[in-house]
Amino acid sequence: MTTTYAATRETHTIRPGAFGNATVLRCRECGATTPLGAHYACPECFGPLEVGYDYPTITREQIEAGPKNIWRYQPLLPVPADVASFPNTEPGFTRLVRADHLAAELGLRTLWIKDDSGNPTHSFKDRVVAVALTAARELGFTVLACPSTGNLANAVAAAAARAGIRSVVFVPHNLEQQKILTTAVYGGTLVAVEGTYDDVNRLASEIAGEQESWAFVNVNVRPYYAEGSKTLAFEIAEQLGWRLPQQIVVPVASGAQLVKIDKGLRELVELGLVEDTPYRIFGAQASGCAPVARAFKAGHDVVAPVRPDTVAKSLAIGNPADGPYVLDVCRRTGGSVEDVSDDEVIEGIALLARTEGIFGETAGGVTVATLKKLVETGQLDPDAETVIINSGDGLKTLDAIAGKVGPQATIRPTYDAFIEAGLA
Amino acid sequence: MTTTYAATRETHTIRPGAFGNATVLRCRECGATTPLGAHYACPECFGPLEVGYDYPTITREQIEAGPKNIWRYQPLLPVPADVASFPNTEPGFTRLVRADHLAAELGLRTLWIKDDSGNPTHSFKDRVVAVALTAARELGFTVLACPSTGNLANAVAAAAARAGIRSVVFVPHNLEQQKILTTAVYGGTLVAVEGTYDDVNRLASEIAGEQESWAFVNVNVRPYYAEGSKTLAFEIAEQLGWRLPQQIVVPVASGAQLVKIDKGLRELVELGLVEDTPYRIFGAQASGCAPVARAFKAGHDVVAPVRPDTVAKSLAIGNPADGPYVLDVCRRTGGSVEDVSDDEVIEGIALLARTEGIFGETAGGVTVATLKKLVETGQLDPDAETVIINSGDGLKTLDAIAGKVGPQATIRPTYDAFIEAGLA
Repeated sequence: MTTTYAATRETHTIRPGAFGNATVLRCRECGATTPLGAHYACPECFGPLEVGYDYPTITREQIEAGPKNIWRYQPLLPVPADVASFPNTEPGFTRLVRADHLAAELGLRTLWIKDDSGNPTHSFKDRVVAVALTAARELGFTVLACPSTGNLANAVAAAAARAGIRSVVFVPHNLEQQKILTTAVYGGTLVAVEGTYDDVNRLASEIAGEQESWAFVNVNVRPYYAEGSKTLAFEIAEQLGWRLPQQIVVPVASGAQLVKIDKGLRELVELGLVEDTPYRIFGAQASGCAPVARAFKAGHDVVAPVRPDTVAKSLAIGNPADGPYVLDVCRRTGGSVEDVSDDEVIEGIALLARTEGIFGETAGGVTVATLKKLVETGQLDPDAETVIINSGDGLKTLDAIAGKVGPQATIRPTYDAFIEAGLA
Repeated sequence: MTTTYAATRETHTIRPGAFGNATVLRCRECGATTPLGAHYACPECFGPLEVGYDYPTITREQIEAGPKNIWRYQPLLPVPADVASFPNTEPGFTRLVRADHLAAELGLRTLWIKDDSGNPTHSFKDRVVAVALTAARELGFTVLACPSTGNLANAVAAAAARAGIRSVVFVPHNLEQQKILTTAVYGGTLVAVEGTYDDVNRLASEIAGEQESWAFVNVNVRPYYAEGSKTLAFEIAEQLGWRLPQQIVVPVASGAQLVKIDKGLRELVELGLVEDTPYRIFGAQASGCAPVARAFKAGHDVVAPVRPDTVAKSLAIGNPADGPYVLDVCRRTGGSVEDVSDDEVIEGIALLARTEGIFGETAGGVTVATLKKLVETGQLDPDAETVIINSGDGLKTLDAIAGKVGPQATIRPTYDAFIEAGLA
């Protein structure tokens, strides 16, 4: 069966089945539909577009027979049936870790950690970039690009290298040397921009409008990109034995991850892949960049932008695009949005590492610390099964714990010195 | 069925089946056997001990039904049948990546990368530590310890945290701050020792002799620890569809990983799990610490110690314990041991990242660069299927590429500046 999609690159014809079971782009504001293509704003109202599907019957067995990465969920993503045959970083199917020590420490009955530091470049961004790269290829784009200050830059540069296409990554010129290195090593084009991250972002949008063949993953192919986060929901449900958890705590930057986890869970219910049991979704922010938490607490429907000032830089989006949708999801499901101080973030990182041997990045610290606060304030039910997301790796945010942890003692290299130090 | 083992902790009784199908410790020099226990040197000749097994029938189906980590190979390891039920970091079953771009660049027909940077603390050390921790628990040890300068320290501290037991890690006092942080964050005891790594090692051996309840993973439970590396061989064979590759290139530090990969492949053949097809094993060293390569090239059976001076610090063991066995394996299988300069190591890291999107640590650079040299010098057959090991993560050895890679341009935040820089 041949489906016709709107072509976007002048010389490129989109092949049948390029987007799997996806059929349309739908405006999240006015509901107007647009053919699948390189569109990200509604032609009617300029609202954000989301991928819509016409799902056939999909079975657990069909999914379980797939590869041990996000492509096992190909029928639920806007990607073609042969997606796994193209060279890609094969992200996903990261560990869901039963966290009994952390649960005991916080007074929870059952706690799981979805540890996305296990992805190829050690953050959940590998998921969304893999879907964006696929869409970019199917749409005829020849360059993969992004503005970024960290995880996204790594994921784009690595995915493009693996796929054998060019990447162009724009970063603020004063970025830490280690974040420069971890992107530059993949050999794509890395451009340092004299300005703030906001300046970089604006420049990227301008270039996206001019460079016909460049796919900016989080700009002009954003509807596809964002769908990649649904795989977190799919994996959690499958790894729990095809059922929904009762509570999920998710870090909030743009908010897309939280909103897409909710979308993923609802799709599983609609497809009959899991039983329709109630769940509550909670958002986690750092107090130094908590526009969504503030709006939630104030009972607002809109999110007032803030100027970020937090150690959790991967969550430091002052004007989050999906903020209002996060409010919707958390209110609809009976969850909430909470925020924690930078000191609590550092304590959260150390608590997770000490109790479960998982070294999360600052965003993971935000999530653990928020979980603690949600329990202490009675917002989260300690007897209900809970899942939290660790979205990245502590190796990328070492500065956050520098000076906070270190050796217990420095000794001379003798057994007597060891005994005298009281370490035995 | 109850098996009796020699107890080692005075108040501890080893439970039946504590070591699975393992039955004995056997001297690799004189062949004398010792009961399973906390022994690492032969009581007859002081030679190194290795775990021996009495294998029942083991099927592919049995293994494939197991967990997606090293414990699927429980019947082939010195661990109990219920090993997966104890909290552990669940290492292994990392990706075997088909590397067509790198193969094309080097003129190889079929190349695979076993990417062990996907382990929980991002190196193959998680495998050996998980087995050592299990043996330590079964033997009644209550503390997990090691001397280390990097990957092993991370793996021990994380595994102990996850298991809920105390860790004590000894490091040289002048270690880089980032390696201190990535160990200290797990909250165990970290001891800085005023001296070189050799001093630290000596102190560890002394303490191991005095502290009755401390298991030093790479000292007094080393026979168990080393068996963990067999899982690399098991996974490669299973991921290839239950068959042996024709050539494998393995980095050499102590040499244990290479020797155990060979042991693992031979066990698969003996058990009838794979067909008995010929394979060749190649060792990879940095020229700044190449005692085994030197001995191989000189036709010696013994390995003369060297003083390490290389950027590949995780391979910088000047007096490798398994050196003579590496020579045996490489000669027996028709392989060789080769070494590469530090400049080639850096080029190897960049080559792997650029072609396959995998950012390996310096040891990975050694392996890729050695592969290149083996092809160029005709030692390795470019038409035979080849697997290389990437044993760790580039995020841990960023210093090695600092100043070597970086932005192509720094521009003002305007579209004109972008065009003028010639980046479009």
